[in-house]
Amino acid sequence: MKHTISVLVENHFGVLAKISGLFSGRGFNIDSLTVGETDDPTVSRMTIVVSGDDRILEQVCKQLNKLIDVIKVIDFKDSPAACRELLLVKVSVSEPVKRVELLDYIRIFDAKVIDLNDKTFLIEVTGDTERIDSFINTMKGFGIKEIARTGVVALGKVQKSG
Amino acid sequence: MKHTISVLVENHFGVLAKISGLFSGRGFNIDSLTVGETDDPTVSRMTIVVSGDDRILEQVCKQLNKLIDVIKVIDFKDSPAACRELLLVKVSVSEPVKRVELLDYIRIFDAKVIDLNDKTFLIEVTGDTERIDSFINTMKGFGIKEIARTGVVALGKVQKSG
Repeated sequence: MKHTISVLVENHFGVLAKISGLFSGRGFNIDSLTVGETDDPTVSRMTIVVSGDDRILEQVCKQLNKLIDVIKVIDFKDSPAACRELLLVKVSVSEPVKRVELLDYIRIFDAKVIDLNDKTFLIEVTGDTERIDSFINTMKGFGIKEIARTGVVALGKVQKSG
Repeated sequence: MKHTISVLVENHFGVLAKISGLFSGRGFNIDSLTVGETDDPTVSRMTIVVSGDDRILEQVCKQLNKLIDVIKVIDFKDSPAACRELLLVKVSVSEPVKRVELLDYIRIFDAKVIDLNDKTFLIEVTGDTERIDSFINTMKGFGIKEIARTGVVALGKVQKSG
């Protein structure tokens, strides 16, 4: 099963290597990983998407919790989360009719063209993993030159009152 | 000096730990790191933002290039790049007048409200690091509950023809 895990850590060097080592040491492949500062510059949030055995993952999370640099570990399997990633993709089209079609898809996905020349478009789009995958699949029909995706970040959804 | 480095790697487990270990072993603190799949599922792209001594960084990049799992290393210091990150931020406002002000800022930054209740807004915004920092600073005036930012992804800008 796929898990999205959020880890708040002290912003020291070596923490990232230690934590990613904990996962790879247990044979987990990391599907995506992001690390960014929070509003407190001494604290960073890592978001890790891994698939693998649930029980072993539970052990890894317990081990994470014991690390001195780890402040908090959340496995979003138990609580609804908003998951988002950002994709940059460079697409080349030469025929005018293809370009019109491409611009249609850019509108449909609420994407942005952030740089271009007469043939090549550099496009930014955000969404959950499924939406990003779907945009990439659509772009494959045009001709993808390069891709960079951030991987997932997640925050717990807002509690509904009432 | 701050460097944005893009590394294309074979999608094996342990690669991430090996590469982040290379940086922390040399005393570099990683400001942000993202790893995501490319359109080829066997290849991932890591984007790493580090600050530190330029000469040592050059050595680290040379070492990276020697790793068997590393396909390509680009330091964007030499070529113009489009750098983007995504921020999720949870903000609480109770006064109606503050809420109107918040919605104004959301429009100004071309941000999206992706979840909400009567008090709390979960907001998504994208941009370069400066823009994200500026949005966070603005949100501090309202009351930030939680933050998750992806860290930077970068692709080389489109070559202008002519």
